[in-house]
Amino acid sequence: MSTPDATPCCAPLTRETISADDAATLAVRLKAIAEPTRLRLLSLIAAGDGGEMCVCDLTGPVGLSQPTVSHHLKVLVDAGVLTREKRGVNMFYTVVPSALDSLAVVLTTSAAAPSPAGA
Amino acid sequence: MSTPDATPCCAPLTRETISADDAATLAVRLKAIAEPTRLRLLSLIAAGDGGEMCVCDLTGPVGLSQPTVSHHLKVLVDAGVLTREKRGVNMFYTVVPSALDSLAVVLTTSAAAPSPAGA
Repeated sequence: MSTPDATPCCAPLTRETISADDAATLAVRLKAIAEPTRLRLLSLIAAGDGGEMCVCDLTGPVGLSQPTVSHHLKVLVDAGVLTREKRGVNMFYTVVPSALDSLAVVLTTSAAAPSPAGA
Repeated sequence: MSTPDATPCCAPLTRETISADDAATLAVRLKAIAEPTRLRLLSLIAAGDGGEMCVCDLTGPVGLSQPTVSHHLKVLVDAGVLTREKRGVNMFYTVVPSALDSLAVVLTTSAAAPSPAGA
């Protein structure tokens, strides 16, 4: 039973030297999304009506069985990048934008970061 | 013999539905960095004098043998996020900022993206 945790873990990787603990936390989150089907699921869910999708509507586009899709969705929920809500007999999934954005911030280098005002 | 390739592969994940091919490319790049030692190596190299470091100076901080560190560095070079240059008997490694930034762009959601002018 892992707890979803999308708390930003670390400063931008190339700006501050990352600690061993932070590197371990960050690696777990990156590993959760570093899988082709999971990337497609994230993208499909974000494009869904109201930014959410039912597992029943995801099996077709990715061409996988419902148990396989549910497993991938669970990994993404555990990593904090998706939330789920049961409505009736269906489970609906929504992307957590702040979780993806916090990963993006860690990877952004000073070359891409906005310059400080007046610099 | 993989060719380093840091060409941006995809539009932001939550803005456009990612194709199966792009998801596969992106997953390979994310997997390369989704490892604690490799994240620490990237961070240490970026903090190095002139933004580069010799493998000989990286073994101490990560507490691993030179062959293990060299293996991790090769994965990062193959993924296009590091370049290497031999000078004398030493191999020096430098971060490729555009490669990390292109991964960051793919993960950034519209919630974090700058608003279009006037919007």
